[in-house]
Amino acid sequence: MSNQTLAGYSAEHKALIEENMIQFIQNLQAPESLKEAMVYSLQAGGKRIRPLFVFAVITAFKKDSKIGIPVSAAIEMIHTYSLIHDDLPSMDDDDLRRGKPTNHKVFGEAHAILAGDGLLTYSFQLVAEMNHPDVTSDMKLKLIRLIAQAAGAEGMVGGQIADMEGEEKQLSLKELEYIHEHKTGKLLSASVLAGAILSEGNSKQLALLELFSYHLGLAFQIRDDILDVEGDESVIGKPVGSDEGNQKSTYPALLTMDGAKEKLAYHIEQAITALDQTGIETELLISLTKMIADRNH
Amino acid sequence: MSNQTLAGYSAEHKALIEENMIQFIQNLQAPESLKEAMVYSLQAGGKRIRPLFVFAVITAFKKDSKIGIPVSAAIEMIHTYSLIHDDLPSMDDDDLRRGKPTNHKVFGEAHAILAGDGLLTYSFQLVAEMNHPDVTSDMKLKLIRLIAQAAGAEGMVGGQIADMEGEEKQLSLKELEYIHEHKTGKLLSASVLAGAILSEGNSKQLALLELFSYHLGLAFQIRDDILDVEGDESVIGKPVGSDEGNQKSTYPALLTMDGAKEKLAYHIEQAITALDQTGIETELLISLTKMIADRNH
Repeated sequence: MSNQTLAGYSAEHKALIEENMIQFIQNLQAPESLKEAMVYSLQAGGKRIRPLFVFAVITAFKKDSKIGIPVSAAIEMIHTYSLIHDDLPSMDDDDLRRGKPTNHKVFGEAHAILAGDGLLTYSFQLVAEMNHPDVTSDMKLKLIRLIAQAAGAEGMVGGQIADMEGEEKQLSLKELEYIHEHKTGKLLSASVLAGAILSEGNSKQLALLELFSYHLGLAFQIRDDILDVEGDESVIGKPVGSDEGNQKSTYPALLTMDGAKEKLAYHIEQAITALDQTGIETELLISLTKMIADRNH
Repeated sequence: MSNQTLAGYSAEHKALIEENMIQFIQNLQAPESLKEAMVYSLQAGGKRIRPLFVFAVITAFKKDSKIGIPVSAAIEMIHTYSLIHDDLPSMDDDDLRRGKPTNHKVFGEAHAILAGDGLLTYSFQLVAEMNHPDVTSDMKLKLIRLIAQAAGAEGMVGGQIADMEGEEKQLSLKELEYIHEHKTGKLLSASVLAGAILSEGNSKQLALLELFSYHLGLAFQIRDDILDVEGDESVIGKPVGSDEGNQKSTYPALLTMDGAKEKLAYHIEQAITALDQTGIETELLISLTKMIADRNH
C-alpha cells in the first residue's frame, strides 16, 4: 500500500473517531464541567492507534469499517482515562501530555480522577448500547468481556501496578515483557480482536490475530523505548531520555540499542507471519504495522 | 416481617455476597498487591444495602435470590471503588472509613486509584460473564447499560462532581436533591431494577420499582443527614457533625430537623405506595425500607 493511501485511510478514520467521541460525550446528561474535562483529554490528540486497528481489521475482512465506531471510541476512551490517571501527581506526576497541560493541571486532581472514572464507565455503556443490524447481543457481550479483561486487573491496570513496582529496580527481560504485554499490549490486542469479532472472524482467525497483536504490541513498545533514546523531543512530545532519568528498565538498556532493534524486527516479522495465515486482506494491516516499526513519534 | 426474620435474611445474604466478592477477586490473574488492595476495601464492612436490595427484589418475585450474586457483587464493587476514590486526598481526604484506615492510607494513593479502577472495570466483566440458564444475553446487556448509566457521568460520577462543586455554597433543596439522586440514588435504584430485570419483571413493574427506588434513595440520604446531627459517633463510624464542620448543605440545615424528619416519612410512604402496586410480595422490601428509615448507623 502506498504511503499516501495509508495516510488517507488513517486521516479519514482519525477524524471519524474524534468527531464521534466528542459527540458521544456532548450528548450525556451530565455536569458541564465534567464533560469539559472528559472532552479535553479526548481532544488532546494522539495517534489513535487502537481505533485505527479496530477499523483496519474490519476493512481487512472487507466489511464496512463504520461498524467499528462505538467499539473503537470505547477503547480510545479507556486508553484516554488511563493516561489521565497515570499523569496524576501520585502516579507519574506529569504536567504535560503531547505538549499540552495534563488533565489535572487544567481541571484539578479531583475532576481528573472523576473524568477518568466517567470515561471508563461510559466505554462499557457505549458497547452495550451499540445499535447495528449486524451486531448481535452475543457479539456485544463478547466485546465487553474482551475489553474489560484487557483494561482491568488482568490487563492494563495490572500492568500499571507491575510497572510502578518495577521502577527503580533492574528488571529481567521477562519482567519487562510482562509489564508491556499488560500495560499496553492487552488493550492493543483487544482492538485487533474487537475488529475481528465485529467482522465475524472464525476461531482460527481470532487465534492468529491474537498472535499478530501480541507481537504488534511488543514491537510498539520497543519502538517507544528506542524513540526515547534516539527521538527528537519536539516530535515525540516528551523530554528525550526521560526513561533513563527515571531509571526505568528499557529494551535498549537491557539488550543494547542494536539488540533492541533486532528484537523489534523479529516481532514485526512474527506479526506479519501470523497475519499471512489469516486469509484476510493483509495489505492495510501490514502497512500500519510497518508504520509502527518506523514511526518517529 | 419480624425483625428476627429480616435480620436472618440480611445476615445470610451479606455473608453470601462477601464470600463471593472475595472469591471473584482472588481468582483474577493479577499482581497480588493489587488484589490485596481491592480485597481490603471489599472487606471493610458496610451495610451491603445495594446487594440486599438486589436479592430482596428477586425474593419478592419469588425467584431464587442466588441468581443475583454476580450483579450484586458488581454493584457493590462499584460502590466500593467510589468510596476508595472519594476518600483520596484530592477528594474528601479521609483517613478513616468505617473505623478502618482508608485504602490510600494503607496501600498508597497510586495503588488506591488503580484498585478502584480495577474494581470498576471488573464489575462489567462480572455481569457480561454471568452464566445462568435463566439469564439471557439481552438481560445481561440491559443490566450493563443500567449499571453503567447509574455509575457514570449521568449518575454517580456526575453526582460526585455536583457535590464537590456545591461544597461551601448554600444549595437549594432542588440542587441538594439533584446531588443525592445522582451521587447515591441512581446506584441504589439500579440495584432494585437489576433485581427486577433478573426476575423478568414487566415494564409496569419496572416503572413502579423505579419510583419506589427514587423515594428509597432520598429517604436513605435524609436519614444519613439526620444521623450526622443526632447519631452516636462510635456507631456511625465518622465524627458526628462532620457535615456541619464542612459547611455541607444538609436536609436538617435546609428544612430544620423536624422538616427533615417529615420529609423522610413522606418519602418512605411514597416508596411503599409504589411498591404496593407492583403485585409482587412486598413484605421483605417494606421491612428493608423501614430499616433504612430507622437505622442508627
